[in-house]
Amino acid sequence: MAKVVCFGEIMMRLNPEGYLRFVQAGNFEASYAGGEANVAVSLANYGNDAAFVTKLPDNDLGQCAINSLRQFGVDTAGIVKGGPRLGIYFVEKGASQRPSKVIYDRAGSSIALAKREDFDWDKIFEGADWFHFTGITPALGGENPQICLDACKTAKSKGVKISCDLNFRKKLWTSEQAGKVMGELMPYVDVCIANEEDAADVFGIHAEGTDINTGKISREGYIGVAKELSERFGCEYVAVTLRGSISATDNKWAGMLYKDGQACFSPEYLIHIVDRVGGGDSFGGGLIHALSHGYEQQDAINYAVAASCLKHTIEHDYNLVSEAEVKSLAGGNASGRVQR
Amino acid sequence: MAKVVCFGEIMMRLNPEGYLRFVQAGNFEASYAGGEANVAVSLANYGNDAAFVTKLPDNDLGQCAINSLRQFGVDTAGIVKGGPRLGIYFVEKGASQRPSKVIYDRAGSSIALAKREDFDWDKIFEGADWFHFTGITPALGGENPQICLDACKTAKSKGVKISCDLNFRKKLWTSEQAGKVMGELMPYVDVCIANEEDAADVFGIHAEGTDINTGKISREGYIGVAKELSERFGCEYVAVTLRGSISATDNKWAGMLYKDGQACFSPEYLIHIVDRVGGGDSFGGGLIHALSHGYEQQDAINYAVAASCLKHTIEHDYNLVSEAEVKSLAGGNASGRVQR
Amino acid sequence: MAKVVCFGEIMMRLNPEGYLRFVQAGNFEASYAGGEANVAVSLANYGNDAAFVTKLPDNDLGQCAINSLRQFGVDTAGIVKGGPRLGIYFVEKGASQRPSKVIYDRAGSSIALAKREDFDWDKIFEGADWFHFTGITPALGGENPQICLDACKTAKSKGVKISCDLNFRKKLWTSEQAGKVMGELMPYVDVCIANEEDAADVFGIHAEGTDINTGKISREGYIGVAKELSERFGCEYVAVTLRGSISATDNKWAGMLYKDGQACFSPEYLIHIVDRVGGGDSFGGGLIHALSHGYEQQDAINYAVAASCLKHTIEHDYNLVSEAEVKSLAGGNASGRVQR
Amino acid sequence: MAKVVCFGEIMMRLNPEGYLRFVQAGNFEASYAGGEANVAVSLANYGNDAAFVTKLPDNDLGQCAINSLRQFGVDTAGIVKGGPRLGIYFVEKGASQRPSKVIYDRAGSSIALAKREDFDWDKIFEGADWFHFTGITPALGGENPQICLDACKTAKSKGVKISCDLNFRKKLWTSEQAGKVMGELMPYVDVCIANEEDAADVFGIHAEGTDINTGKISREGYIGVAKELSERFGCEYVAVTLRGSISATDNKWAGMLYKDGQACFSPEYLIHIVDRVGGGDSFGGGLIHALSHGYEQQDAINYAVAASCLKHTIEHDYNLVSEAEVKSLAGGNASGRVQR
Amino acid sequence: MAKVVCFGEIMMRLNPEGYLRFVQAGNFEASYAGGEANVAVSLANYGNDAAFVTKLPDNDLGQCAINSLRQFGVDTAGIVKGGPRLGIYFVEKGASQRPSKVIYDRAGSSIALAKREDFDWDKIFEGADWFHFTGITPALGGENPQICLDACKTAKSKGVKISCDLNFRKKLWTSEQAGKVMGELMPYVDVCIANEEDAADVFGIHAEGTDINTGKISREGYIGVAKELSERFGCEYVAVTLRGSISATDNKWAGMLYKDGQACFSPEYLIHIVDRVGGGDSFGGGLIHALSHGYEQQDAINYAVAASCLKHTIEHDYNLVSEAEVKSLAGGNASGRVQR
Amino acid sequence: MAKVVCFGEIMMRLNPEGYLRFVQAGNFEASYAGGEANVAVSLANYGNDAAFVTKLPDNDLGQCAINSLRQFGVDTAGIVKGGPRLGIYFVEKGASQRPSKVIYDRAGSSIALAKREDFDWDKIFEGADWFHFTGITPALGGENPQICLDACKTAKSKGVKISCDLNFRKKLWTSEQAGKVMGELMPYVDVCIANEEDAADVFGIHAEGTDINTGKISREGYIGVAKELSERFGCEYVAVTLRGSISATDNKWAGMLYKDGQACFSPEYLIHIVDRVGGGDSFGGGLIHALSHGYEQQDAINYAVAASCLKHTIEHDYNLVSEAEVKSLAGGNASGRVQR
Repeated sequence: MAKVVCFGEIMMRLNPEGYLRFVQAGNFEASYAGGEANVAVSLANYGNDAAFVTKLPDNDLGQCAINSLRQFGVDTAGIVKGGPRLGIYFVEKGASQRPSKVIYDRAGSSIALAKREDFDWDKIFEGADWFHFTGITPALGGENPQICLDACKTAKSKGVKISCDLNFRKKLWTSEQAGKVMGELMPYVDVCIANEEDAADVFGIHAEGTDINTGKISREGYIGVAKELSERFGCEYVAVTLRGSISATDNKWAGMLYKDGQACFSPEYLIHIVDRVGGGDSFGGGLIHALSHGYEQQDAINYAVAASCLKHTIEHDYNLVSEAEVKSLAGGNASGRVQR
Repeated sequence: MAKVVCFGEIMMRLNPEGYLRFVQAGNFEASYAGGEANVAVSLANYGNDAAFVTKLPDNDLGQCAINSLRQFGVDTAGIVKGGPRLGIYFVEKGASQRPSKVIYDRAGSSIALAKREDFDWDKIFEGADWFHFTGITPALGGENPQICLDACKTAKSKGVKISCDLNFRKKLWTSEQAGKVMGELMPYVDVCIANEEDAADVFGIHAEGTDINTGKISREGYIGVAKELSERFGCEYVAVTLRGSISATDNKWAGMLYKDGQACFSPEYLIHIVDRVGGGDSFGGGLIHALSHGYEQQDAINYAVAASCLKHTIEHDYNLVSEAEVKSLAGGNASGRVQR
Repeated sequence: MAKVVCFGEIMMRLNPEGYLRFVQAGNFEASYAGGEANVAVSLANYGNDAAFVTKLPDNDLGQCAINSLRQFGVDTAGIVKGGPRLGIYFVEKGASQRPSKVIYDRAGSSIALAKREDFDWDKIFEGADWFHFTGITPALGGENPQICLDACKTAKSKGVKISCDLNFRKKLWTSEQAGKVMGELMPYVDVCIANEEDAADVFGIHAEGTDINTGKISREGYIGVAKELSERFGCEYVAVTLRGSISATDNKWAGMLYKDGQACFSPEYLIHIVDRVGGGDSFGGGLIHALSHGYEQQDAINYAVAASCLKHTIEHDYNLVSEAEVKSLAGGNASGRVQR
Repeated sequence: MAKVVCFGEIMMRLNPEGYLRFVQAGNFEASYAGGEANVAVSLANYGNDAAFVTKLPDNDLGQCAINSLRQFGVDTAGIVKGGPRLGIYFVEKGASQRPSKVIYDRAGSSIALAKREDFDWDKIFEGADWFHFTGITPALGGENPQICLDACKTAKSKGVKISCDLNFRKKLWTSEQAGKVMGELMPYVDVCIANEEDAADVFGIHAEGTDINTGKISREGYIGVAKELSERFGCEYVAVTLRGSISATDNKWAGMLYKDGQACFSPEYLIHIVDRVGGGDSFGGGLIHALSHGYEQQDAINYAVAASCLKHTIEHDYNLVSEAEVKSLAGGNASGRVQR
Repeated sequence: MAKVVCFGEIMMRLNPEGYLRFVQAGNFEASYAGGEANVAVSLANYGNDAAFVTKLPDNDLGQCAINSLRQFGVDTAGIVKGGPRLGIYFVEKGASQRPSKVIYDRAGSSIALAKREDFDWDKIFEGADWFHFTGITPALGGENPQICLDACKTAKSKGVKISCDLNFRKKLWTSEQAGKVMGELMPYVDVCIANEEDAADVFGIHAEGTDINTGKISREGYIGVAKELSERFGCEYVAVTLRGSISATDNKWAGMLYKDGQACFSPEYLIHIVDRVGGGDSFGGGLIHALSHGYEQQDAINYAVAASCLKHTIEHDYNLVSEAEVKSLAGGNASGRVQR
Repeated sequence: MAKVVCFGEIMMRLNPEGYLRFVQAGNFEASYAGGEANVAVSLANYGNDAAFVTKLPDNDLGQCAINSLRQFGVDTAGIVKGGPRLGIYFVEKGASQRPSKVIYDRAGSSIALAKREDFDWDKIFEGADWFHFTGITPALGGENPQICLDACKTAKSKGVKISCDLNFRKKLWTSEQAGKVMGELMPYVDVCIANEEDAADVFGIHAEGTDINTGKISREGYIGVAKELSERFGCEYVAVTLRGSISATDNKWAGMLYKDGQACFSPEYLIHIVDRVGGGDSFGGGLIHALSHGYEQQDAINYAVAASCLKHTIEHDYNLVSEAEVKSLAGGNASGRVQR
């Protein structure tokens, strides 16, 4: 059991039921999610001591977000109360040729307006083994780039491992801004996670021979990306998720874990999707679990990809699967026979 | 049929189903509402040519708000598209001794950030008979006080009647701010609408002998308030809603219409509440319909109070009743016998 | 256990959820109901051998109606398949001062177009103790008046008791038509059931001193009505339901049973209504159960009124209560304490 | 922006939730739809000035149908109020080897009983560019064949383009009746739309080498059908939808547009279906938009097929997609990647 | 029409909506099901006179189970009331690589604790043509093995055909226990039904060349299994279902019917699954219908497999399809085209 | 902030939606509840460090129960995993004259079968201020009476205050059994809580002049009961809830707190009920909070009654109100005005 601290934004997620479009929705399903919160829930579900740190408004909606984490055993003691509002995002689930759609309404949230003094990183990292954040958090702007830097420095000083999912969000900042800020944070990062596009968007590192719109993927290209990231920033591990979008309903899904010039690729799953939002985060959650428990490189990427494969079959962002379920799939049991 | 222009904010309203508290809600019912939009829908339902003017973000959520108005026949051609977001508010329905709760998340909305040049009042008021706004709109801040003044001046210059519901919102501004801004707008207002507390909160005009928390209401006190408002600002009509809160489930409801020193009181209804949010707005909608159609003073207040009594029996903010239904109740048919 | 045959129409009932108005409804709750079908279900729930006879279209919707009866143990073997459609009616639940609303869409239904030869009454009444129909069935028109006459004659010839609920529906026929047709059927009727208005609407027999809109009810007036009905048509029993509509939410409810010049009044219940549609039918169901089991006159009216009081607390038309539950209430246990 | 008038029936559509069968349904989702109303909504969604003309009962259900159109901006001013009822149809969604099922309950609707004098076509077509109807409307019987002829003649006389979707419904009329009536209307039609079977059912024109039950489709056969239709009736365009039913869940979907001896085929989409009802209508909506905006023949069929491909991913009949979304898919973006 | 008696347990089935996991469920869909009850409903739906025999608690939940059977016309007169509780089982629907999950909470149910004297088999089998039970019933323990033996002996003595689905449940008993008990019952069985694993689990009879986890199936292996079962116990027919689990969403499905050394295989269906629980039972229901109506061997297996293929497209356990629907699919109509 | 340990059973609660009866329910709302768990949640909501101790099956349903507690911040670290099943109870909400109905299905649950060695009370009470249990726990039988005694002895030895709600359940044990077991536990109890009937049912101590079925309540009678309980067992406090059942919808609600011969009565609330199950537990939760925080006797009973008054307005068992909300009502703010 590892003690992992995740830091970032948690939002209210609102989505119409089933495949209804926004303009048809008389109801929204409400859940709570965020890139780092999703990782914290994954880790708690695998039996780790996962803590989530953020700033939330001191009202019932902020409390709802806290409760959503507490129910899965995530430690929320480090969450600061205050500020104006809980960020919200709206998800419309796509199907077949119709893409899913996300509308963010996160500007002006309590965490976006947080101050450096809101967080006592020395105390937060007491007893911690691992610190995880994503590129979304500094992208929230305000003092968040500096807060992330504070966190990284403190973590490093205490021997806490650091993972970061690049998670580029073009609606939050430009590639230029991202490259500059992330470039300052990356030297602290031990494990760098990225999807097919992030390295290109943030650092201009392109996978040769790959076109994400056609689903054409070149293994060699991604090895090159990982090598470049690893060399430029000194990361111990670079992990990349490989999504092949056949349609909004069917995706291919795999991953690669690079270390010391060696790349391990997972098996590729063909997934009939229930809800793909949070898929990347669940990969991060699986990877941190695997690496913090000393898995071999191939086992680690297999675990992370199996975990995130399962996430695609689960509604809402949180990956509500156990370690045993992930291991069963990673071990090859993909037939989906009923468990009685 | 009168042509009425309403101007203000329309928001997404989210409420848990039934009597669930926020912390129990896995779903929110989504509807669209706002003080002036509610009036526009009331008026369209009575057969008027009602237009609603606002600024909405150019995304699916803004479109949802427009569609919610269009379905009832409200003219939305004057709505400006742009700006960052749709305001949201959350409603938790109370019951018995537990009060209803409203959480506003409206800061930074497209209308709050609107500019004077967004609205061409000359064009908007073409052919219009009536202009309605409430104290909420200037309270949104930014250029909205000035925009309201622009609208009032143009309306006045075109002979368009003006009604204003004071609608004080203490989370939007202070009594001092409200008094100053509303004091500048009131001289243009022909019909002033207020609830039991507004006149005191905005202009420091108190109803003697009344305590809204105990439900004790003095008719004389409200006549005094109306007289004072009428004299200070030259309003032709002053209308006041009189709510007696027995509990969150049962309310007494009545109203007064003052003109030229004469006050008419409606009958008082004892209401078993389905949803009381929008109750005051539905009073305004009924009153404007009555006055713009030349109702006698007593008939007008009776219509407005019957209309708003019915609103309390309807889910969400919009008052979805016809003129015939209001007239039936105003005419004394309150037994609720099944209409086959 | 009595064997009771009920004959009439069963329709699909569609109502918006909760207190939503028709114009707000994106969903309808679907159930199946009809004046005589409701009685059959009541009787089956009390342990009787209840049969329902009608004509239904030979499609899935007709089957749904049959299944809804079968689930409560009603014998549907006598239902004829054929004809064009299942009748439908839409219910909008009122609240407080807003009345409930019913829209019928029953024209052209299979039963409305049924033929005399569709029903073999000799076979249907084999072993039967009781036959029940209401004024709605002949009001459906076509051959239905004659079919009802066929049924009454056969029942009479076999010594089967006959009850009829006058149930005047002004959207189906005029008072003149009703008076003529019902006047021919009534001589066969042993037990005549009516609400406050039926006797006046159908036969011009008015309860003196009563105004159903104000809720003012004169006991003497209803005794007079019963006496007149009894004398004019030779009914053994005349039963009248007495509804005092305080609002769409709160009703007073009582009943009277008249026989041989003697009138017994039930206690009056003050009901907080869940769903009042089917209330009158549940009175009929209770009464037939009581009379066919030899209850004393006072006990019979008490049972019928307690049964129908309970119906008002149950969603949809069918009165889903057991004999024990009715007896408990009729016995005075009205406190509603939890039964663990 | 084209001004398009659509004429036909709009019904209430009731379907059980998800994949429930009729006999399992305790709830029905209620929406409003009809072959021509669906086209009107498509066109309004693409930014056109779409009007829908019909006759509806003057009750809340008729109003619901109007509201469903108004919310998407369809002009409903030309709808006539009156007549007995709103048509209804029930949809049970199929899956895999289980076909979807439709039960129509549309007989005796207000539009089926409409009179020629109900519609003032001169006024309706003021300023119009296009008139659309389908073979369903004359199939409703009564005066509808003549009303359609009135409309066609007036449209023609005013230079309004006319499109007609053959839309044969064997439950409404026979092939003989259809052939006779449609044969009189077709000479006015500029754009004829048909699915794989319509031409055979209505006019006995068969596609050689094709068996719709096996999914075997011969391109040459459909070119022959279009040529024959074009020559026989003088249509400028003939469009045919080509559905390959793999199962109730997975369909292949494509289309052909024929003009002057030249046939353009769209790409074929493999669709994982959300709701296929309304698929053909959405093809018509896309085609009218494309042709009325001067698209090239290949672009037009591509737009129409992409539009209707997307419809299959949307619940209920209306095709709630924007021009931009259709163009994105028509432009080749079929991977369904999340749009953030 | 055959008269078939089914004997076993009926439980409340609770499943979260859609693809929600147990830990996400704030609601459970409630239905009623059981291996033999499912067969009874299938048979009633095909028009047979199906009776279900069990013991149920004398409370509202037992009544719910009875009502669920009665609605489809199953004769429940033979159900004994008494004992402590209704068994429950919870189903979580899987998707793609995530398997479905079943949690049984059936211990201590009224049927598990039933006594031999509860059932008067002589009376139960009056007029019966067929008796069906499964291996689950004796596995419930207590006196159930003996009760099954009583039933078999009585049935045999009356010339009633007996079918048994081995249905091994490892949570109820061990292979050793099953082998011993079933070994005593099998000599009475005319038609033995098994899935891919049952014969191995219960009697140690393995299908050579088959691995159910990889989906690899050897036809020869299953013929060997059937031959062995037939010879060991003297069954007239042995039927085996053949499931190929591609994923929790997509399965291949076929079956084999063996008689007198001759094996007939059905076509194989590729099924996109709606709900696969009850799939095996629906095979039994189809097979009994076919064999009791004198179908040829190939027709019988085709009917049984088509019936159970359709079950996979229907929510909950009961197979709600008609004989016509099964015949249509068995006849080759698998394209799922809409039936209007 | 007090640290309070609660011990007992937590069950799955299943109730039909709204006012549906069991026989109408196609869905059950699932929540988790139990006499002592409800108290733990109350206390956590008031900001205390509340822990809940029980034994739960090691499956997803047990986990659901844990999650339901964790979401509100209850410490579940002391919960033991193992045993066969989670207890269940079914609730049917009554209305007006129809009582609510509870069906327990709790026999054989993991906690009912727990062993003394499952619980290490020395460790559980580390740092604890208060221990709470109810009469339900020993009534579960098996070793539970002895486990409760173990807990009481350890608590006493560590200076932990002990409260017990008598909570007699006639379906779990007889008055004789209860009297014997509770008589052994009561000497350890500092704060004894009872409803109107418990003292009579468990110890034969009757309130003179009171009839709970008629709602007639004698204050003197309850003072006598409290005096007797206090003297017989040496309790410091005796608290009694006083419910006046007007109907299933409307109740009067008050309470009394007795100490040293002095009885304080709270104000009486007239409650329009949303859900009354858990009402008594919420009284206990309020009382423990008040007494553990040193409230005066009158303030304590006022807090406890206000807290439990609010519970009646909240769906499901848990009392989801904050200390501020309770204080507001206890302070006299009962008008239910909207909180914006």
